[in-house]
Amino acid sequence: MMHIEITDIFLDELKELIAKGDNQAISILFEEVHHADLAEVLEELDFEEAVFIIRLLDTEKTSDILTELDEDTREKILRELSSEEIAKEIDELNSDDAADIIGELPEEQKKEVISQIEDVEHAKDIVDLLRYDEDTAGGLMGKELIKVNENWTNLRCVKEMRKQAENYDKVHTIYVVDDNDVLKGLLSLKSLLTTSTRTPVKEVYNPKITYVRADENDEDVAKTMQKYDLFVVPVVDEMNRLLGQITLDDVVDVIRDEADKDYQMAAGIIEDVEADDSILQLTKARLPWLILGLLGGLGAASIMGGFEDALKTYPVLFFFTPLIAAMAGNVGVQSSAIMVQGIANNNIKGSIISRLLKEVGLTLLNGLALAFLVCVYGFFQIENSTITWVIAMALIIVIILAAVIGTFIPVFLHRNGIDPALATGPFITTSNDIVGILIYFMIAKWMLGF
Amino acid sequence: MMHIEITDIFLDELKELIAKGDNQAISILFEEVHHADLAEVLEELDFEEAVFIIRLLDTEKTSDILTELDEDTREKILRELSSEEIAKEIDELNSDDAADIIGELPEEQKKEVISQIEDVEHAKDIVDLLRYDEDTAGGLMGKELIKVNENWTNLRCVKEMRKQAENYDKVHTIYVVDDNDVLKGLLSLKSLLTTSTRTPVKEVYNPKITYVRADENDEDVAKTMQKYDLFVVPVVDEMNRLLGQITLDDVVDVIRDEADKDYQMAAGIIEDVEADDSILQLTKARLPWLILGLLGGLGAASIMGGFEDALKTYPVLFFFTPLIAAMAGNVGVQSSAIMVQGIANNNIKGSIISRLLKEVGLTLLNGLALAFLVCVYGFFQIENSTITWVIAMALIIVIILAAVIGTFIPVFLHRNGIDPALATGPFITTSNDIVGILIYFMIAKWMLGF
Repeated sequence: MMHIEITDIFLDELKELIAKGDNQAISILFEEVHHADLAEVLEELDFEEAVFIIRLLDTEKTSDILTELDEDTREKILRELSSEEIAKEIDELNSDDAADIIGELPEEQKKEVISQIEDVEHAKDIVDLLRYDEDTAGGLMGKELIKVNENWTNLRCVKEMRKQAENYDKVHTIYVVDDNDVLKGLLSLKSLLTTSTRTPVKEVYNPKITYVRADENDEDVAKTMQKYDLFVVPVVDEMNRLLGQITLDDVVDVIRDEADKDYQMAAGIIEDVEADDSILQLTKARLPWLILGLLGGLGAASIMGGFEDALKTYPVLFFFTPLIAAMAGNVGVQSSAIMVQGIANNNIKGSIISRLLKEVGLTLLNGLALAFLVCVYGFFQIENSTITWVIAMALIIVIILAAVIGTFIPVFLHRNGIDPALATGPFITTSNDIVGILIYFMIAKWMLGF
Repeated sequence: MMHIEITDIFLDELKELIAKGDNQAISILFEEVHHADLAEVLEELDFEEAVFIIRLLDTEKTSDILTELDEDTREKILRELSSEEIAKEIDELNSDDAADIIGELPEEQKKEVISQIEDVEHAKDIVDLLRYDEDTAGGLMGKELIKVNENWTNLRCVKEMRKQAENYDKVHTIYVVDDNDVLKGLLSLKSLLTTSTRTPVKEVYNPKITYVRADENDEDVAKTMQKYDLFVVPVVDEMNRLLGQITLDDVVDVIRDEADKDYQMAAGIIEDVEADDSILQLTKARLPWLILGLLGGLGAASIMGGFEDALKTYPVLFFFTPLIAAMAGNVGVQSSAIMVQGIANNNIKGSIISRLLKEVGLTLLNGLALAFLVCVYGFFQIENSTITWVIAMALIIVIILAAVIGTFIPVFLHRNGIDPALATGPFITTSNDIVGILIYFMIAKWMLGF
């Protein structure tokens, strides 16, 4: 397969061919190119050019390109195509990709497109899949699979598989079912290749099988597949009847999205957005956290206002509030990130108490090092050495408290069924800011006696 | 396959059986349990108990358990086993898992273990794999694969595959090579199942193939496999000779690690650490960023010291420095997170200028909303309305600048071959803190004229 490098020169030439309407040259140019690369090319073209290409190429190719496009680009292109044209694309796709694309269409168009799909079985499969929530096993699965009856012989299996495989381009796993379609086990290609043709399936299939239920959460499916090193997992209903299968490539997206979401939350972005989303979408995802941060800042200002009397005697104290706030925020985010990842990857052992003690010990160690640096700075830059002591001491206490909060909150949220990733980011930063500044001035008041 | 729930009751019973030395009961208990579950059980046991279990069970099972264990736990357990015992475990493993485990052993023991591996071919494969860097395609690949010669017939292929499949438990892909082992293409199981037994492989194999070079970076391998939806990718040397294959499950770890690493960097953790690492490791990963944050705080304090004269006339100004610093940090992290993820997932389109303009527009919108809130607060809480204006205006300007810095730095780092994730987290927070406070006081000086 030719993998192309999308250079500016390539794009310029292509745009020229499109302008000239040289369909043959374009077809030849694209013949050997992988659809994933073509999708990238389309993303770089103007909208009209992209629609032109989609109309020009075979549906066998364009349907694959459509699945690889960004959701936004795809939506725009599909809006240009008629229901009949869309149905032709859908005809070429596996049921899971087809259902995903139809799911994005406006309600009325959905019906229209489905009614125009030529292969009725395919249409049924798609309608079936549309019933499931996007973030469940049912929403991830495809209906295409190879299954054999436990009562067949090896020879019959091979024959039936040939038939089934013609409609299905990748043979991953051969499922064994009984007469009621209840999943019994797996037939390995190895045993099919290495046993006699007359052996009944019943005698050679492997009944040890990991499966998921259609209503299971997609993140749980991802965890199961990772834990048991599965490339493909069958999906069953409440009666253990085989409904479809999920392949690891679908789950990779779930895994990456989950990690990306945690990262975005840590960065103060509430909703799953991408760089190319609209300004309004991005504002909706970002402004709420910023407002929270602002309220935290106003809270900190009010606290400092309460200690205004100290301003005349100890103005230097006020120069170090951003430092105290920033350190409390930094340590809180560090502690919570470790916990959030540990919870997500399921590698947190031992009790919460021992975890807290470890975090406190760790932060005390870091705090002593940081306090030492503050003392060195204070020795040269701060006249009143008591103020240096106040800053150093407050720093240690504030970051230990920040670490405790950062460790405890994710665990608390997780135990109460809330995504712990919520805890990191501005939420912890902001609360630690306020608590940090309050403690700082209380220590100052106590040590300096104002 | 039985999947067990690891309850406290289960663990207590198991510990009792171990204490009694009831080997038979333990063997029966574990017979039907998946090795991934057994690995989790072992993580919960005391160290001596875990070693006892490893010695008790078959190497066929324990070798699989070893690959699933945490690196730390595995290291501890292997230290208890003799080189001969380790070699027996290695004998059962695929070459990639075997090489990973041997790679973790102390240098002298490596040789000892390798010399005790019974299967010489297996030992050769492992030694081959040890040559490759851990984070390259060579470091990810396994040597086990099914390959056929382009000159064979279908019938000969099936026979040879039966032989090869006996040593290899999963048939993923059948590679076609020439007499020099140069990769020519793939033979699909479908074409093997659906064409005559006398057809030569040459006529039916698919020459369109995506492969990676052994020295390619593992993250690039992950991107290739995701982009082209590959479950398995062949690895070749400089002469295109087939060396091994990488399966998607190995790459899932790379994808997750990469996303986790970005998240950790954003949270101010430099090195890849887990919640269960030692305090010293965690300190090494966290203290440097904290020191950077501290230096930022000291820098901010120095800047404020330069404006000390304003303290007597406009003390309120100083109450809002944590707010300005926090908002600059928050916006900078948001902007950079969007860019870092966009770069990682390769979905950033258009020029850097249009990206910057969008970010500025977005931040201006957010800034106006935030400034409005500041004005409402100021109306009730701040006597001198000019100070309210200073804060509101500084807030808008500071966060726009933070957004520009947050957008630009990841792109700049990426273009210069540095991981853009470095830019997020305390680095951007800290620099934005200082710049933000400086601009704030400059605006105050200009508007209030001190």
